Amino acid sequence: MQLLRLGEPGAERPAVRSDGTTYDLTSVTPDITGDFLAADGIASVRDALADGRLDIIDNPDALRTGAPIAKPSAVLCIGQNYAAHAAESGAQPPKQPILFFKHPNTVVGPKDQVLLPRGSSKVDWEVELGVVIGKRARYLSSPDQALDHVAGYVLSNDVSERSFQIEQSGGQWSKGKCCETFNPLGPYLLTADELVDPQKLGLRSWVNGELRQDSSTADMIFSVAHLVYDLSQYLVLEPGDLLNTGTPEGVALSGRFPFLAAGDVMEVEIDGLGRQRQELVAS
Amino acid sequence: MQLLRLGEPGAERPAVRSDGTTYDLTSVTPDITGDFLAADGIASVRDALADGRLDIIDNPDALRTGAPIAKPSAVLCIGQNYAAHAAESGAQPPKQPILFFKHPNTVVGPKDQVLLPRGSSKVDWEVELGVVIGKRARYLSSPDQALDHVAGYVLSNDVSERSFQIEQSGGQWSKGKCCETFNPLGPYLLTADELVDPQKLGLRSWVNGELRQDSSTADMIFSVAHLVYDLSQYLVLEPGDLLNTGTPEGVALSGRFPFLAAGDVMEVEIDGLGRQRQELVAS
Repeated sequence: MQLLRLGEPGAERPAVRSDGTTYDLTSVTPDITGDFLAADGIASVRDALADGRLDIIDNPDALRTGAPIAKPSAVLCIGQNYAAHAAESGAQPPKQPILFFKHPNTVVGPKDQVLLPRGSSKVDWEVELGVVIGKRARYLSSPDQALDHVAGYVLSNDVSERSFQIEQSGGQWSKGKCCETFNPLGPYLLTADELVDPQKLGLRSWVNGELRQDSSTADMIFSVAHLVYDLSQYLVLEPGDLLNTGTPEGVALSGRFPFLAAGDVMEVEIDGLGRQRQELVAS
Repeated sequence: MQLLRLGEPGAERPAVRSDGTTYDLTSVTPDITGDFLAADGIASVRDALADGRLDIIDNPDALRTGAPIAKPSAVLCIGQNYAAHAAESGAQPPKQPILFFKHPNTVVGPKDQVLLPRGSSKVDWEVELGVVIGKRARYLSSPDQALDHVAGYVLSNDVSERSFQIEQSGGQWSKGKCCETFNPLGPYLLTADELVDPQKLGLRSWVNGELRQDSSTADMIFSVAHLVYDLSQYLVLEPGDLLNTGTPEGVALSGRFPFLAAGDVMEVEIDGLGRQRQELVAS
């Protein structure tokens, strides 16, 4: 199943898409939140679908698509999780996952405009596999347990401003990761039961139609299962947390491509998780 | 006024203390959240108090004190904001504020136990002035505007695990800042109208009764007003965000004191913001 949130910003309604038909979920939950996921909400949706209890949304394409989860409890990000991207960033491949955070208020819809921050000069794209936690994960005993704690997967663009991240930050990356609109998310949350292997997904990005990133989650240094397991040794992952699992090579930070300017268009996609398109505009 | 949340974890009720008497706030709001603060909730509390509409809580000391805000939307932290602490950490004083995040689920009450993470060896204390945002702050035009966006002030202990933060992190500090129970907060949120100058507060910490930190917010490199202004150039601060403004010298990272062990007791206090006490226990 694909879980979605449709409607204007701040007024999105939950929905589910199954076999190409989109159904209204407001009779099941007021919104798609961590509390909903923790209360086995996905099973409730499945039951409601099977019972034919949901109303069809007639023209879903006429509605704006929001981020498929409302206000993540936290947005955790993994840095340099693809060896070729670590190299283009001037770093050695990490020996352990590198963790930083985005402010949850960076999350926007998959086709919303992305704002160029005032004073910015180095805005960059990063296509990433997003993982949404569905069950509290604390001191998991092995990576084998990890994927049971995942509600689903989502396409994520971890937009970055490299001068804020690296030159104005004292070395802590969050300053260049938290600008307004810097985490387009969606179009939908694919429930975990429909994604057998998160390590076999092609992921790509384009700027103004030119291919920039073209890789596979098979190239991750630390797999999704390892990341969830490893993080659970350091902190508690909550239902509703979003985990951005790192980006492959092909970003502007490499020096091979120009940074983004007003009027540019970013597109990102992951096999089975849909496609995003954002225009860059001044803030 | 002092805003509080009293009761068992997850079942705290909002309260207000004024002139030594504690009143139940459940007739005004179900909880003290970012939405409550954004909707001018503090003014509603003031009106309810003035009208004599609130019930007195007879024996508030019999109740557990929770963190005075429920689930911050984000916990932003400033690193090395006191010159002597930067020096004891082996760093130069920063030229710009250094930003990192804690997971919001680290927040606990001011007398709750603090868990020593499994595999930890370098757990450390950090007394800090916490600032709670009351009004959305985006591209403020000067530091003079900043304090109008502050709902109030709160005592915060930014507990840290230094091997997770520095040795196992790839240089990004959050990994040693997000362990379960690592942000004792409270006992109360002092509303901003009752704190004329946040840069004149003594702040202290003790371990097992021995003084460790003893400084003043006058020694901050970047004032609260400057921090809120500066951060608003990079991101949007939301009502309900908690900003930990950095710690003064006197932590174990300096090498002058041992790290914490099971059975140790941390105490922290800030003038006018109360006192905390936590026992360290195994997790």
